[in-house]
Amino acid sequence: MSDIKKVRTTVDIYGQQYVIVGSESPTQIKLVAAMVDEKMREISSKNPTLDTSRIAVLTAVNAVNDYLKMKDRLEQLEKELKKEKD
Amino acid sequence: MSDIKKVRTTVDIYGQQYVIVGSESPTQIKLVAAMVDEKMREISSKNPTLDTSRIAVLTAVNAVNDYLKMKDRLEQLEKELKKEKD
Repeated sequence: MSDIKKVRTTVDIYGQQYVIVGSESPTQIKLVAAMVDEKMREISSKNPTLDTSRIAVLTAVNAVNDYLKMKDRLEQLEKELKKEKD
Repeated sequence: MSDIKKVRTTVDIYGQQYVIVGSESPTQIKLVAAMVDEKMREISSKNPTLDTSRIAVLTAVNAVNDYLKMKDRLEQLEKELKKEKD
């Protein structure tokens, strides 16, 4: 049995309800859902002909791109910190 | 006129073609698209009844969650680095 407590959080994203199950707190999940909802509405307003599925995929592309950039910055900073400590 | 050169990259995500326009290199966009595609297939295999739109939204939720966690770690590291330098 897993020790990680599974939390169920219901959120509303782009007019649809989702039950998110995971180890994150409902506060965190609601923040994430609000960010996804906002990004979807932003992409939709710039591309009014796109359907929900394509808007959601482009939102995921955006988020993964931001994630990778953040990861690069983190790795750079870790190197810098290691140099400072040596 | 913007100085940032806009690059158009065509990618295939979950069986659909997308033209991504932005300042990122095609290599970066293709990597991002492959990660989104992989995550969508992973979520789909665990939840075979979900439609593409819901799979894409859950992929975006995942990516934004990872992004926020990475951002927290980065901020912590920045503080640590500042302390080392002081």
